[in-house]
Amino acid sequence: MAGRVVRNIERASPEVIDGLAAAGVATVHEAQGRTGLLGPSMRPIWPGARVAGSAITISAPPGDNWMIHVAIELIRPGDILILAPTGPSDHGYFGDLLATSVMARGCRGLVIEAGVRDVRDLKEMGFPVWSKAIWAQGTIKGTLGDVNIPIVCAGQAVEAGDVVVADDDGVCIVRRAEAAAVLEKARAREANEAEKRARFQAGELGMDIYGFREELEKLGLRYE
Amino acid sequence: MAGRVVRNIERASPEVIDGLAAAGVATVHEAQGRTGLLGPSMRPIWPGARVAGSAITISAPPGDNWMIHVAIELIRPGDILILAPTGPSDHGYFGDLLATSVMARGCRGLVIEAGVRDVRDLKEMGFPVWSKAIWAQGTIKGTLGDVNIPIVCAGQAVEAGDVVVADDDGVCIVRRAEAAAVLEKARAREANEAEKRARFQAGELGMDIYGFREELEKLGLRYE
Amino acid sequence: MAGRVVRNIERASPEVIDGLAAAGVATVHEAQGRTGLLGPSMRPIWPGARVAGSAITISAPPGDNWMIHVAIELIRPGDILILAPTGPSDHGYFGDLLATSVMARGCRGLVIEAGVRDVRDLKEMGFPVWSKAIWAQGTIKGTLGDVNIPIVCAGQAVEAGDVVVADDDGVCIVRRAEAAAVLEKARAREANEAEKRARFQAGELGMDIYGFREELEKLGLRYE
Amino acid sequence: MAGRVVRNIERASPEVIDGLAAAGVATVHEAQGRTGLLGPSMRPIWPGARVAGSAITISAPPGDNWMIHVAIELIRPGDILILAPTGPSDHGYFGDLLATSVMARGCRGLVIEAGVRDVRDLKEMGFPVWSKAIWAQGTIKGTLGDVNIPIVCAGQAVEAGDVVVADDDGVCIVRRAEAAAVLEKARAREANEAEKRARFQAGELGMDIYGFREELEKLGLRYE
Amino acid sequence: MAGRVVRNIERASPEVIDGLAAAGVATVHEAQGRTGLLGPSMRPIWPGARVAGSAITISAPPGDNWMIHVAIELIRPGDILILAPTGPSDHGYFGDLLATSVMARGCRGLVIEAGVRDVRDLKEMGFPVWSKAIWAQGTIKGTLGDVNIPIVCAGQAVEAGDVVVADDDGVCIVRRAEAAAVLEKARAREANEAEKRARFQAGELGMDIYGFREELEKLGLRYE
Amino acid sequence: MAGRVVRNIERASPEVIDGLAAAGVATVHEAQGRTGLLGPSMRPIWPGARVAGSAITISAPPGDNWMIHVAIELIRPGDILILAPTGPSDHGYFGDLLATSVMARGCRGLVIEAGVRDVRDLKEMGFPVWSKAIWAQGTIKGTLGDVNIPIVCAGQAVEAGDVVVADDDGVCIVRRAEAAAVLEKARAREANEAEKRARFQAGELGMDIYGFREELEKLGLRYE
Repeated sequence: MAGRVVRNIERASPEVIDGLAAAGVATVHEAQGRTGLLGPSMRPIWPGARVAGSAITISAPPGDNWMIHVAIELIRPGDILILAPTGPSDHGYFGDLLATSVMARGCRGLVIEAGVRDVRDLKEMGFPVWSKAIWAQGTIKGTLGDVNIPIVCAGQAVEAGDVVVADDDGVCIVRRAEAAAVLEKARAREANEAEKRARFQAGELGMDIYGFREELEKLGLRYE
Repeated sequence: MAGRVVRNIERASPEVIDGLAAAGVATVHEAQGRTGLLGPSMRPIWPGARVAGSAITISAPPGDNWMIHVAIELIRPGDILILAPTGPSDHGYFGDLLATSVMARGCRGLVIEAGVRDVRDLKEMGFPVWSKAIWAQGTIKGTLGDVNIPIVCAGQAVEAGDVVVADDDGVCIVRRAEAAAVLEKARAREANEAEKRARFQAGELGMDIYGFREELEKLGLRYE
Repeated sequence: MAGRVVRNIERASPEVIDGLAAAGVATVHEAQGRTGLLGPSMRPIWPGARVAGSAITISAPPGDNWMIHVAIELIRPGDILILAPTGPSDHGYFGDLLATSVMARGCRGLVIEAGVRDVRDLKEMGFPVWSKAIWAQGTIKGTLGDVNIPIVCAGQAVEAGDVVVADDDGVCIVRRAEAAAVLEKARAREANEAEKRARFQAGELGMDIYGFREELEKLGLRYE
Repeated sequence: MAGRVVRNIERASPEVIDGLAAAGVATVHEAQGRTGLLGPSMRPIWPGARVAGSAITISAPPGDNWMIHVAIELIRPGDILILAPTGPSDHGYFGDLLATSVMARGCRGLVIEAGVRDVRDLKEMGFPVWSKAIWAQGTIKGTLGDVNIPIVCAGQAVEAGDVVVADDDGVCIVRRAEAAAVLEKARAREANEAEKRARFQAGELGMDIYGFREELEKLGLRYE
Repeated sequence: MAGRVVRNIERASPEVIDGLAAAGVATVHEAQGRTGLLGPSMRPIWPGARVAGSAITISAPPGDNWMIHVAIELIRPGDILILAPTGPSDHGYFGDLLATSVMARGCRGLVIEAGVRDVRDLKEMGFPVWSKAIWAQGTIKGTLGDVNIPIVCAGQAVEAGDVVVADDDGVCIVRRAEAAAVLEKARAREANEAEKRARFQAGELGMDIYGFREELEKLGLRYE
Repeated sequence: MAGRVVRNIERASPEVIDGLAAAGVATVHEAQGRTGLLGPSMRPIWPGARVAGSAITISAPPGDNWMIHVAIELIRPGDILILAPTGPSDHGYFGDLLATSVMARGCRGLVIEAGVRDVRDLKEMGFPVWSKAIWAQGTIKGTLGDVNIPIVCAGQAVEAGDVVVADDDGVCIVRRAEAAAVLEKARAREANEAEKRARFQAGELGMDIYGFREELEKLGLRYE
């Protein structure tokens, strides 16, 4: 039954987390073998943010934001709250007062498969949120949920302490134990992309760079 | 049958309406007991506007914007048009020409459970719209609807003369007769929030400010 | 079976294409008798762009972007890529590397009934995209599609060489053979609108300008 | 604030209600001027039922079915429960135990803009439900709602005592005070339809029966 | 502009059409290279029907069914009506009276990217419909559309006289000129499937029948 | 990277699995603390089936059903296939041939967050499927996925060997290790419900049986 709160979780190293933020969602997702993405319904409430942090996971009833208060106490600087409701909800679980509170604890952002409100304030405060809805509808504080247990958010399994990477392309989860290895692959990928970018800018074609012509012909591609 | 137009409606006082605009959607919605919100599909076509005005209600057939012309004649400075189609529609009922016309009459905005177009122009003109779609698809002028009768817009019942409050969090309806009382409660709420905000900024926790610990423990919250 | 690529297509004249871009989607759509629009799910990834170009059509399997590489070779300055997957897909078919490549060929934009990624980069590069999703999910290169054959994109039939017009109101297709005639009608429409705009600004009503009163009364409109 | 329960409501006469059930949703909707329909997301959980009854209205929090228990006490034989959540919900508010209870009170059906469960049992019991979801997800009993106050269900305003008519075409609301007049019009409509049906069966065309040819020609219909 | 009606269209031979009906949607779709399907939102209003017929295409305004009357006159025995609205619509364009009329003309079914009503009657009459909605909401007769011109229905281009094949798996379009060739391939496919079915029933595996093991191993499949 | 296949998995005992099937989804879901449900978009393709089995999990690319063939070899009598695509897909991954094959291996059903086809055949064969779409669109066999690794299907984490319970109310997952304990609670729950059902049939009210009156009054419920 609901009501479990895990106080102490392990986190990846700050350097790795910041490196993953710099790499961004698309690169990190590719670097770890095209896994880890939340679904495309999760969108930033304002454009341009790019963050990474350790997941504080929250499972909450639809339309009930009580567990956010429980979770705030567990935030350490660099963490990101990630909330999945136990049933579909567009309610506004989070607004400027809660943002004030979590920012005071060093929280870097919120990922929520539900709604938020006070979005003009949140933008002015520079607090980034990825949500599936923006809606002023209030929530109650009536029923228990869980904090720092495994959840599924927007189709992706997340454990407390996993690294949450988020930017305008969406949200990606990196397993804590794999974070350093993924960062290494992401950097290799970026180096490779820089070289490719220069060749594309010079007018070279992917057909030639990647040698696609022969392969496509074998599969039956035909020009008319 | 359709075709009813009510010319004269009562409106709330301008001071109350402007006060509600300043309070914003989330606060007004809470102040009146968490009622009055339109559904989360209603989104601003450009961010940052915050307005309130008296509702001129329009019921129109899908893909037919004729009744907007009928409604424009009834606009007084400070009014907001709110339109619900009689069947689902994404058509662009409203563009820059109609915006020019309603702005000349002092209209403060449009709320429409359908589509609009010329949105780049509307943004440049500073005319705010909350809609469920942006689409260039044109409308006809062929069938009667109604103006200033009770409608249901995005799941919310609205009567002519009710106060429409809208910002980036969505759209909220305040009954005309309750507007002054709701404003009073909204102001009390804002005062209370200012005090809370200071405490949150100082690092205090909602768990302590609101005294949640004991209550949660009784319900069975357990730390691991 | 898939695998057809048509190398040479006819295009409308550059002057006509640029004229249609200047007119914009809503005006062009009206000028050609309210036809040609893609559905309202197609949205710009950043606001403010207004472009037109000759369609390079792409039919691609869901989650497979190989045919974009095939298409790039066929781009001439002024073209726009328009891609329809053979089944629903939100995958990110296109990012900053491909944008670098197509911009080097003079491509003016991308219309895609699927997803794109690296959207912050695309915005900085000034490359406009209209898509139904933004999602970092990667694609494979495994299966043939077609290039420059007739497709259906977001409910609209498109042929290679048709003129694609796109702005914040959506995307409109103009048949290549009709492009010059449509431009003429669009300009006539704009002239007419300028005159109407001035009258609306002066406070005149559409009810009077268009002579609606008598017509509405005959249909049974009644004032209370 | 929530928590209001209106014990005594007025109802239409049983003869009128049964007459409206016999006429069915499409006919009743037409007879009252094409108003009163709930949105198309409301579907029967099993096909073939056709019922009408007096509305017991319920406003309930998302995922909380406590108010159904409050409402059951107020059911009189021939009533229909109609529930709108205060925020979107797919939870299963209602199953075979509650169906047993409401059938013991003479309830004729349930209309709910949320989910239900035990649908195989409900079908075997012959208890008809119109809902927007079928889902086993359970609800809590934690927060107050209201009973027999005005609600908006699937886009339609409903008051306690209004007549709810439901069949495979959806759900239609008839105002209590207008029920007798609507029934009369519905019967006239049915008589007219019977005559039309015979002519259609004999191969006559609507073009001739309704005299559309001249009207269409005037509007510009042209044969090729 | 709208208002075009093409009286005379060419049709495939009755034997070919009936052969395609017998093959069914999935087989026909495969036989013609996985093309021609309408989107998955198109569902039968009752299960079990399997039909094919020549397309009478209708383009109609949202919520306006006038053009169906125009189309009925053009129906020959064995035809199927297929309607696409010019904007999204869930309205009930078609009910038991129109079904009576089209059945008297030998029509085999209706495919409509909008709504229908009287579905219990339609089922009793044995008239099959594939639609995206069931809704009693009535339509008007106010604006011109077109009949027997090319349309796009649920994402698929359709021309008058194309063969429409429909069953519980959805709706597939076969170009008139290709219908005989597609039927031949469909029959070859069925013969092949019968042999495969016997082997599967005997417990053979697709891995062995199709020789997948080596191919998968090369791509890197690994057992643990 | 994709391509992992786990051959040997542990399963719950057949008696426990069959017991969970008999209890049904709603009861099992309640018995394990309201967890484990897949989302409400997962619907049976024909009504009335109620099954349980051990999960053979499949992760497959969108529109690619190759991994189903890999999985079939691993089926033991009593198993259920459960497939999640790596990106949203409505493609028909599964039809009558594959059903023949899996039934020959003793498979009890399929749960798939994508589409299936040949649904009339599947119904006649008595093979139950829960899917989010029915669509004839074919799939390819081109890319690796995984079998018997942890997946997320319709929002629910599933591991190979977990018990899948499915009926008309949806699909519920029971952890293998907890299956026996959940069954015990489900049976206790059923006994309790039988007693309650009798009291409800006799006309007793939930308000009295559960003692809600006092609790509701304290929260502020008021009768008018």
